[in-house]
Amino acid sequence: VDVGSGRLVTGEWLDGAAETGFGLDALPYGVFSVGGGTPRLGVRIGDRVLDLAPVAEAAGVETLVGMFDRSTLNPFMAQGPQAWADARSRITEWLTSPQHEATIAAHLHLVVDASMQLPIRVADYVDFYSSRHHAENLGAILRPGQPALTPNWLHMPIGYHGRAGTVVVTGTPVVRPAGQRRPSPDAPPVFGPSARLDIEAEVGFVVGTPSSLGAPVPVADALDHVFGVVLVNDWSARDIQAWEYQPLGPFLGKSFATSMSAWVLPLAALDAARVTAPARSEPVLGYLDEPGAGGFDLDLEVELNGHVVSRPQFREMYWTPAQQLAHMTVNGACLRTGDLFASGTVSGPEPDQRGSFIELSWNARDPLTLPDGSTRTFLEDGDEVRITATAPGPNATRIALGEVTATIHPTP
Amino acid sequence: VDVGSGRLVTGEWLDGAAETGFGLDALPYGVFSVGGGTPRLGVRIGDRVLDLAPVAEAAGVETLVGMFDRSTLNPFMAQGPQAWADARSRITEWLTSPQHEATIAAHLHLVVDASMQLPIRVADYVDFYSSRHHAENLGAILRPGQPALTPNWLHMPIGYHGRAGTVVVTGTPVVRPAGQRRPSPDAPPVFGPSARLDIEAEVGFVVGTPSSLGAPVPVADALDHVFGVVLVNDWSARDIQAWEYQPLGPFLGKSFATSMSAWVLPLAALDAARVTAPARSEPVLGYLDEPGAGGFDLDLEVELNGHVVSRPQFREMYWTPAQQLAHMTVNGACLRTGDLFASGTVSGPEPDQRGSFIELSWNARDPLTLPDGSTRTFLEDGDEVRITATAPGPNATRIALGEVTATIHPTP
Repeated sequence: VDVGSGRLVTGEWLDGAAETGFGLDALPYGVFSVGGGTPRLGVRIGDRVLDLAPVAEAAGVETLVGMFDRSTLNPFMAQGPQAWADARSRITEWLTSPQHEATIAAHLHLVVDASMQLPIRVADYVDFYSSRHHAENLGAILRPGQPALTPNWLHMPIGYHGRAGTVVVTGTPVVRPAGQRRPSPDAPPVFGPSARLDIEAEVGFVVGTPSSLGAPVPVADALDHVFGVVLVNDWSARDIQAWEYQPLGPFLGKSFATSMSAWVLPLAALDAARVTAPARSEPVLGYLDEPGAGGFDLDLEVELNGHVVSRPQFREMYWTPAQQLAHMTVNGACLRTGDLFASGTVSGPEPDQRGSFIELSWNARDPLTLPDGSTRTFLEDGDEVRITATAPGPNATRIALGEVTATIHPTP
Repeated sequence: VDVGSGRLVTGEWLDGAAETGFGLDALPYGVFSVGGGTPRLGVRIGDRVLDLAPVAEAAGVETLVGMFDRSTLNPFMAQGPQAWADARSRITEWLTSPQHEATIAAHLHLVVDASMQLPIRVADYVDFYSSRHHAENLGAILRPGQPALTPNWLHMPIGYHGRAGTVVVTGTPVVRPAGQRRPSPDAPPVFGPSARLDIEAEVGFVVGTPSSLGAPVPVADALDHVFGVVLVNDWSARDIQAWEYQPLGPFLGKSFATSMSAWVLPLAALDAARVTAPARSEPVLGYLDEPGAGGFDLDLEVELNGHVVSRPQFREMYWTPAQQLAHMTVNGACLRTGDLFASGTVSGPEPDQRGSFIELSWNARDPLTLPDGSTRTFLEDGDEVRITATAPGPNATRIALGEVTATIHPTP
């Protein structure tokens, strides 16, 4: 480093970058601002973010300037897979070629100095329910004495629409929601702050390429529509949800906030993470048939107040993102750039692989003990939840997804 | 009329306008184009649409030019109730004052010559379930032997999020969705076109003024956020819905299309239509308490292939728009300009006041006979459904909501 100017020398931004999970094999996109300036597109390399528009300008790539000089990823995402691949290849060249040294050095910022914004303008938000372990756990907890899975579960990826307008970026505080709950089935409902505030650790997929109304997207083409991957925390007020959800599903128990990571990892970065999904217990209808490796080998980690409470395994998911997308459009519904669909809670077969506190504490029967001696069933005000994930990269390294973190604030 | 030029003379556009339901007491807004031109904001008067931006320009009201020279109502709707009232008052002046004659005459088009666009960019779409008659009918049909209403129904307006990206404007064909259904509980599901395609005749409310995340909107302030009213047809594939909806609610059975009228009637036009909602059967929690007249006296009419099959009464709705909006935000969820929330199927107490074919045919037990001798349980390809509505205006006339019409196209 030239200490006088603080400028980096060629390639120095790559030193140690791979070890952070944000090396050249990752290159996630985000929207950031520095010093109160206008939000703009950036790509992450190590602990730095590269301001993309001025670099594209200096490199003379006007089409990319038009895509990068924006405050959301949507215009870039709408361009489709070839444009995404071209941009990724150019960014890699910029970061590694001596001829771009001065430009790159001039437009790198430390991530800690950047204010990260919601990276996409969310169109529709759909949340699935695709972990068999999670669905079986919730069935056993909430509908004891009945089959853990509803009869449809092995035949289709069950999902529902959530509230797109309350998707927030990591770091945004989550205010404990108030609402109706019915502590006793023999008494009227009461109103007040949720007493059973929970998380759902999920992986989200962001749609880039839109589709036409009336034209279902086949499984084989589904991932051509997916720009990238994020981590999602689908906050859930279990008491509000339990009272409201019949017969039309979750509503206010979910709609107060859904957090997503600031960094959108291009799907192309996960080529080495493709795995075969778990074997089918029931044959699937043709439109859901997916030969090949539809799963993704992501290792998630859930921390409560700095202490790891769970390590959910995404490779355990029964329904894959391509199946979810094909199902979501099979009735003719169209996709829009910015649609976000999330996996549903990622839970593995082991107790310490569960992605929600209703499972981890078995509906408050088995409280968790934290290192400070305190116990938890559901979340308390002031609690901080952090979800991270890594995946195998192409060069025997690990690549990281951006974290999704938030602190619980009390009901006003 | 000056036959030579085709120009109208002062006030002639008002002749007979009140009788069409679109007189000076209505003045709904829409987005239209003529001759393949750019979509722009218009207001309807009689059988004509007034191109608003050039009139505002000629009148020298630059702030309104900026709101009207757009392809959606959203920027105008975001301005709030005072701006809406000011615009309404200016438009009334333009249409009635001789000094504006030439300008108005130059910027009127026949509605039949206009191509109507989706008038709003839909943010989130929420569908409620607020007709007690409808909920009791569906409970009796779908859950025989159980109480018709779920235990929560009398305590809160039950609702769920729908797909904003498939809200389409009246006139857009509706393609029969394909999907999974399970004709027999003892056999696996099958895939194919829905055999039970239905309508839901509803009234929709469009949010203008946004609200902040974490700040519930009280019932008393709720209607300050509502810009206007539309008619909605929430198309429903009953067989797809029946198989998929446990435990997370309707998804593909609804998400293929939701039709709305092209004209958004300002809420201010319905002052004379305010009525007291039906008496509560159970006391409501404080945040849902609404003194005064929260209901609206709208008479709906449903036509199938030109034949009236139902006349639902909106004044029968148990939960009001203000209660729905207060409920929707009580958990801290914010409103965005362009949010659309619909009432749920409007059904009255009488058999010929039911707003869906599952009710009208009592789940296919009692087919309807049409004037041509054909019978219907659910919709057939080629069927056209038209929903209209009127309300009492301020001057003993009736005012109209714009129709919502669509024809069923076969699954490709």
